[in-house]
Amino acid sequence: MDRLAGYLPVLDWGRRYDRQAFLSDGLAAAIVTIMLIPQSLAYAMLAGLPPVVGLYASILPLVAYAVFGTSRTLAVGPVAVVSLLTATAVGAVAAPGSAEYVTAALTLALLSGLILFLMGVFRLGFIANLLSHPVISGFITASGLLIAASQLQHILGVGAGGHTLAEIGGALLRALPETNLPTLLVGAAATAFLFWSRSGLRPALERLGVTPGAAALLARTGPVLAVAVSILAVVGLDLAARGVAVVGEVPQGLPPLSLPPLDPALWATLVPAAFLISIIGFAESVSVAQTLAAKRRQSIRPDQELIGLGAANVAAAFSGGYPVTGGFARSVVNFDAGAETPAAGAYTAVGIALASLFLTPLLFHLPTAVLAATIIVAVLSLVDLGALRRTWAFSRSDFAAMAGTIVVTLGWGVEAGIVTGVALSILLHLWRTSRPHVAVIGQILGTQHFRNVLRHDVVCTPEVLSLRIDESLYFANARAIEDVVQQAVAERPQVRHVVLNCAAVNGIDASALESLELIMHRLGDAGIKLHLSEVKGPVMDRLARSDFVRHLTGRVFLSHHEALAELAPETTSRADLEARPAIDAARTFPERPRRRPG
Amino acid sequence: MDRLAGYLPVLDWGRRYDRQAFLSDGLAAAIVTIMLIPQSLAYAMLAGLPPVVGLYASILPLVAYAVFGTSRTLAVGPVAVVSLLTATAVGAVAAPGSAEYVTAALTLALLSGLILFLMGVFRLGFIANLLSHPVISGFITASGLLIAASQLQHILGVGAGGHTLAEIGGALLRALPETNLPTLLVGAAATAFLFWSRSGLRPALERLGVTPGAAALLARTGPVLAVAVSILAVVGLDLAARGVAVVGEVPQGLPPLSLPPLDPALWATLVPAAFLISIIGFAESVSVAQTLAAKRRQSIRPDQELIGLGAANVAAAFSGGYPVTGGFARSVVNFDAGAETPAAGAYTAVGIALASLFLTPLLFHLPTAVLAATIIVAVLSLVDLGALRRTWAFSRSDFAAMAGTIVVTLGWGVEAGIVTGVALSILLHLWRTSRPHVAVIGQILGTQHFRNVLRHDVVCTPEVLSLRIDESLYFANARAIEDVVQQAVAERPQVRHVVLNCAAVNGIDASALESLELIMHRLGDAGIKLHLSEVKGPVMDRLARSDFVRHLTGRVFLSHHEALAELAPETTSRADLEARPAIDAARTFPERPRRRPG
Repeated sequence: MDRLAGYLPVLDWGRRYDRQAFLSDGLAAAIVTIMLIPQSLAYAMLAGLPPVVGLYASILPLVAYAVFGTSRTLAVGPVAVVSLLTATAVGAVAAPGSAEYVTAALTLALLSGLILFLMGVFRLGFIANLLSHPVISGFITASGLLIAASQLQHILGVGAGGHTLAEIGGALLRALPETNLPTLLVGAAATAFLFWSRSGLRPALERLGVTPGAAALLARTGPVLAVAVSILAVVGLDLAARGVAVVGEVPQGLPPLSLPPLDPALWATLVPAAFLISIIGFAESVSVAQTLAAKRRQSIRPDQELIGLGAANVAAAFSGGYPVTGGFARSVVNFDAGAETPAAGAYTAVGIALASLFLTPLLFHLPTAVLAATIIVAVLSLVDLGALRRTWAFSRSDFAAMAGTIVVTLGWGVEAGIVTGVALSILLHLWRTSRPHVAVIGQILGTQHFRNVLRHDVVCTPEVLSLRIDESLYFANARAIEDVVQQAVAERPQVRHVVLNCAAVNGIDASALESLELIMHRLGDAGIKLHLSEVKGPVMDRLARSDFVRHLTGRVFLSHHEALAELAPETTSRADLEARPAIDAARTFPERPRRRPG
Repeated sequence: MDRLAGYLPVLDWGRRYDRQAFLSDGLAAAIVTIMLIPQSLAYAMLAGLPPVVGLYASILPLVAYAVFGTSRTLAVGPVAVVSLLTATAVGAVAAPGSAEYVTAALTLALLSGLILFLMGVFRLGFIANLLSHPVISGFITASGLLIAASQLQHILGVGAGGHTLAEIGGALLRALPETNLPTLLVGAAATAFLFWSRSGLRPALERLGVTPGAAALLARTGPVLAVAVSILAVVGLDLAARGVAVVGEVPQGLPPLSLPPLDPALWATLVPAAFLISIIGFAESVSVAQTLAAKRRQSIRPDQELIGLGAANVAAAFSGGYPVTGGFARSVVNFDAGAETPAAGAYTAVGIALASLFLTPLLFHLPTAVLAATIIVAVLSLVDLGALRRTWAFSRSDFAAMAGTIVVTLGWGVEAGIVTGVALSILLHLWRTSRPHVAVIGQILGTQHFRNVLRHDVVCTPEVLSLRIDESLYFANARAIEDVVQQAVAERPQVRHVVLNCAAVNGIDASALESLELIMHRLGDAGIKLHLSEVKGPVMDRLARSDFVRHLTGRVFLSHHEALAELAPETTSRADLEARPAIDAARTFPERPRRRPG
């Protein structure tokens, strides 16, 4: 039963479900539903799909997640980045507007669902960790800019698509003369209103006497207001006759049962994109879910999240939808509105189902420019160019990964961008760890503590060279270590013992073992013994499986102090007893580096 | 002048060149020349090129390396693995035997030379470090098997090529009925003799009264003996008429001046292969050079080696050759024969030039089966399947990288093999470091030393949780650390302080910083303070560039002992004074792990 509940979290929270939870979930669901109607239509448009597909993707997938997901507040459904990725992937195999396009989107949802599901079963969630924070942040920023640019065509009332900033910009410039003025007026007004509603609507409502909590939630209904007003304007002023594009016929009724085709060639073409969508969707969703869970001291299980999101996407594939994941803005609204259990998601699904049964006729006159405005305002809030400055200050190589991701995403498209970002962060990590920091260390007076001779006042003996290697030893840095030891010994002709302090060595692979053996033999030829100190348990276990420790010319010491007490007893005992100056760590570090070691 | 000598090592050793060095180098060169003549013909055949190309590749490239290289004993020229890679790359763009094939090989040498040269100028030699030891070892073993299999066709006197073991095996099976018996006899006899000469010739010579040193060197002339005897047999028994394939007309004279074509399409096609050849050739060459240099307490400069090998390949491209690098067996012979300076290489070039001027008519009747036997015996000595067992014992993930490289090289070809090997070792490294070992630590009685509570008898306080993180913190493990801390705290309700011992944390990237902030906020919400101890200088410098240290709820302590002395003064001072049991590190580790921590 417990094991089953692990795979079906609904069995756990469902058993304790009560009236209080029902009321909280219901209120949250009502607010999320109102927010989701325009969003789902708009994101479907962004994905190049008929708007109704967005509604379909917001019904069964939410129910599936409510059954299998572990987050109590995550709001699943269409999101901006995944919609853009869908447009890119599906656009490569079918013409927008064709029946094949819709079928390919279904197939993409099915593949993405299966990939997520399999990753969950085989507990491969760690793959998403390869998306480093700067890469995700840069990717979201760049996709936000791309998406906003791609929606300008709807605001201008022209056709101007593209996959890169240059393509979109060029198409817009060429199409500029054909701008439809009424469309531009509607689009600009909607955009301005929505931007204002993000910051200005809430204080305005509070001034009108609405309580702060209610005002915060009502302010989220800006898009629905814009939708309602614009429909009235189109009908009242007959804007459609003046060239304002509208959504048009939206089929009324519940989602159809759809069967993605079993077409091996199509599957093979879409698998890489489905993998990318799965990883990016999962990474985004799980970080939102974790942040919200931590706020209420709850927890989520990432591997079960994979299964939950996988089930949601499979549900989307069989009910006329397209790839979905947990959305940031909607989940925050769900959380703030007081959702207590995943049931809130199921209630939202009911709300959207009712909307597709009864509200779709009203959407006929909705201008696409207003949907575009909804998208632009939503995605520009995700653009965070300030992160570039903060990351630059913290680490040049993280900055390089972030900047590379942004530039390639904007210039070559989303798929190239994310692949470049991951490759860059892996290569930069290898590069950073390929030139390890190695410190000559000595004893701090009056302690048994050994620190870098360049940063601290320490005591050393000329016969014993203590080196602290500040990196795990593996193939990328094995040769560098050989060089460092060789050079350090060459500079100190009096040395008889080299003690490698391995407190910072967290692993030794076969390449590094080879190098250690080489170092030992070279030192041995020069009459110098090689000792190790503070080797960690797991590393020692590993070394014990080779001949290295048995052939070691020196010894393995538990602590560096023990090593020095044995190899240089006089100096060490004097240093032990001597009074030490008062040192404050926080002050010692940043202000006293006498020389920045490489 | 010193700077110039850095780029032209010849200026350095050339100034002190004397008669003694000349005699030593001359003797070594004579022996290497005798060894190189059959090898260069054979490796050119392996590369699918006319045998004379092997001679050409053994003249100017050796002179170029003597001027620019830093190893005093490396013997540059055609080698087996690079010849196989050349056959694969060039075979993809031109038909063997065609003029385009030879031109493409020249182009490959030029590209490889330029790539090596640029890597040297930009000091990018570390790229070769991405080839881990198990990957190189597995690759050499698998290529050795592939090469040996590919030469069986010449022993049988049939045509049966292929790029994978399955292709070659299938072709051989189909061709078996057409075996030419006289060829098989010659080939089998040569193979048997060469295998015997590797182990039996030396003791036989010693029994004949030859001094051990001379016997060791003379034993290396086995291939030349086989060549000479087989030429006599072909002429005397008129074996050519019985279907024994011979080398045929070899052009007489010095290498022609050749100009690789400036064909952008061809260049673009060959660049990936040229890059692979450069990296693999460099990695193999530099490891031979370093091993030999260490034996005489000399040193080489890897970045200058790139320039030396680059110059050698450019020279090959302009003198009718094909890609070259430093060879293992030949360099060892050169070293054992007493070569003292790179001049030995230049003298070898003179020897080969004389051979191409005067000896080529004699090579007309040389059976290709004997060249094939030379290759088979040479490459099988590089096959080391025992390394699989040793690596398995040491590390499963290194074994996986090695086995993966071998399987893919044999099954899908050399290029796929090496790319798989590199990708596998990088992914396995990320996977290993993505689940860091985190130890709860306590104080060892009577010391200021803190170790894993599961492996040592230590003292802890319930209010203070000391965690030692045994890994640098970066994107692949940032989320794992969040989980570990959260769980460790959840298991210990009494905890008021968490001290993260960062002695093993060698780096913190932007993703990990984000996670640390999250950990701090979550602990703060639970009324727990987060402290750091033993943060290394470079890591502290990095942290100081963010807001993290300023907002830290706890403190940064110089040593873990200081942290505990401040946070739990009573327990710590008692532990400081208590007598400790005698501990021997070497015995403590492997035998006392009460539980293997994950």
